[in-house]
Amino acid sequence: MARPATLDLTLGALADPTRRAILQRLARGEARVTELAAPFPISLNSVSKHIRILERAHLVRRRRAGREHLLSLEPRPLDEAAAWMAGQRNIWNARIDVLEALMEAEDAAAA
Amino acid sequence: MARPATLDLTLGALADPTRRAILQRLARGEARVTELAAPFPISLNSVSKHIRILERAHLVRRRRAGREHLLSLEPRPLDEAAAWMAGQRNIWNARIDVLEALMEAEDAAAA
Repeated sequence: MARPATLDLTLGALADPTRRAILQRLARGEARVTELAAPFPISLNSVSKHIRILERAHLVRRRRAGREHLLSLEPRPLDEAAAWMAGQRNIWNARIDVLEALMEAEDAAAA
Repeated sequence: MARPATLDLTLGALADPTRRAILQRLARGEARVTELAAPFPISLNSVSKHIRILERAHLVRRRRAGREHLLSLEPRPLDEAAAWMAGQRNIWNARIDVLEALMEAEDAAAA
């Protein structure tokens, strides 16, 4: 299970369409910052800020190859957030199933 | 699949420990605002702000019973976000499996 601070960073990083699009691009393979920025109608500086948020959330890793900065995906925080979400979903839906069963039992008793 | 704006709201709403704790409390059943606020070491006003963010993300529903405001959980956005996350996770991990297979093939060729 993810530690709460990690979950905050992961979910916060994912709560933005540009950052999700960057991750989707990186899911196709390693990329340079300039390559990543090209499809977006925002400044290179804005893209860099989004990348830093993704790095801080450990969703993106940066390595240097000479003068190039190459970015790649780190799936682990996503795995942890997905596990947390699946767990919550089970808890919520189990609770709702119980409530529905109670309501049906009340309806049946009233009928 | 969730629409991007919904996903922003859902993930943004979940990216906070107080809001996650509020949802966890509501997973045990409907509650009044004052009941929800009681365990938190923050003002009722702050809790109300968190609740409004959860309502805007459609994770929490409010109903009135006389003068009471009762809050309950809405699991649907969580289902959608969980489905999106599971999908991304599969895509990322599939990509990583391909990369690992390529590296192993290269290692084998070099040996």
